[in-house]
Amino acid sequence: MPPSAGRRRSEIVAAARELFSEKGYHSASMRDIAERLGLQAGTLYVHIRSKEDVLFEIVDQAADRFLEAVRQARAEAESRGAGPEEALRLAMRSHLRVVAENLDTATVFFHEWKFLDDDRRALILAKRDAYESAIRDLIIQGIESGVFRPVDPRLAGLAVLSLCNWFYQWYSPAGPQSAEDIADAFADLLLAGLLGGPQAAASDEARDGGGTGSPTGGRGRTARRGQRRSAGGSGTSSTVVQ
Amino acid sequence: MPPSAGRRRSEIVAAARELFSEKGYHSASMRDIAERLGLQAGTLYVHIRSKEDVLFEIVDQAADRFLEAVRQARAEAESRGAGPEEALRLAMRSHLRVVAENLDTATVFFHEWKFLDDDRRALILAKRDAYESAIRDLIIQGIESGVFRPVDPRLAGLAVLSLCNWFYQWYSPAGPQSAEDIADAFADLLLAGLLGGPQAAASDEARDGGGTGSPTGGRGRTARRGQRRSAGGSGTSSTVVQ
Repeated sequence: MPPSAGRRRSEIVAAARELFSEKGYHSASMRDIAERLGLQAGTLYVHIRSKEDVLFEIVDQAADRFLEAVRQARAEAESRGAGPEEALRLAMRSHLRVVAENLDTATVFFHEWKFLDDDRRALILAKRDAYESAIRDLIIQGIESGVFRPVDPRLAGLAVLSLCNWFYQWYSPAGPQSAEDIADAFADLLLAGLLGGPQAAASDEARDGGGTGSPTGGRGRTARRGQRRSAGGSGTSSTVVQ
Repeated sequence: MPPSAGRRRSEIVAAARELFSEKGYHSASMRDIAERLGLQAGTLYVHIRSKEDVLFEIVDQAADRFLEAVRQARAEAESRGAGPEEALRLAMRSHLRVVAENLDTATVFFHEWKFLDDDRRALILAKRDAYESAIRDLIIQGIESGVFRPVDPRLAGLAVLSLCNWFYQWYSPAGPQSAEDIADAFADLLLAGLLGGPQAAASDEARDGGGTGSPTGGRGRTARRGQRRSAGGSGTSSTVVQ
């Protein structure tokens, strides 16, 4: 029995995802996709209208996954009563998890979205903007609550996105650290910075404004001693000198 | 009089750079390159052997520019007797300047280098590794001198590279901030982190180990008050809330 239409369609999208990631959208042909699945090229058109439809589906799914990831991170932070530090950490974990679990999708999303037609590109751009805005809002909340320094929220948001987005270029599932560990290390770095020794850390006690009673309030100090635990308590990160 | 062979070759590489950036290496044909220059496709082969030769030239030039940028930044830091903070800031400025001045090259470098044949890809990988290692060394020096916290130098180096590399995706020369301003803002963020108010800043005075007498020792404190000057004294950055 041949696979159901729905399953066949998913297989086509999955094969296209791999091929667009490997060769780029323009040079991966419908014939390549069909060959990878052992099908005749004509059969594809029973399930999809065009190669661009498939590109859109891949890119749109990716955009939705990122949006859903930050929505979940914010909901989790809210339900825990977490401060902006932990909210940002959770968002970075969610983002890196999405990339780690969808490396081909991330490559297609970042490299090929610009080849969509104008209407669809506008739709993806709107979702990207919504995502960037959600990240920026986390920064703004941290600044307004006095936990973060009064940095430029646009550039700080872009810094978070840079750390999270560039990840697809170097991350390997076979590497020594999980996406969560890396997210924690990046979050620590972005929150506490490179500078500052034990003396600077001690003064966090006296920090004025906001963040009081936050379960993450102690994270910076703990991190500085190199004995950190992940925000979810599910593991330890390994950002000490190797 | 037709352009000299050298000039014609440069024109071909420049046209290829634009086309590879716009359409991707695989889908930009030699005919496309010739058309953009108003030439016959056959004429190209007087000047270049193959499309891959041109790709290699673009990618290899980019790799050399990044290596030269970090070399210059380190030399400048050394000649100024600058500490690791300023050395890192200078390196980030150099990197962002290279990207800002070569946006098409950066796109080709990051997206298309993987399409080189094995030997050439290995050569580019070696240059990328050398670059990453130079950035990581700046982190290690900062840690060893006690100015930086004992973070994981690999991940901290990757954080620097993420901020600097992702830049090609969003930077516009028409935007409100120069590459230098953005580099300074990113360097401030990475050095001082998001956390910490005036109390934390004051304790920098008492920081133990290294960095004493460094001209950049006061930068963190100044930055935290939102009255910062760029490392080179040539301008002000604008990482305050807008």
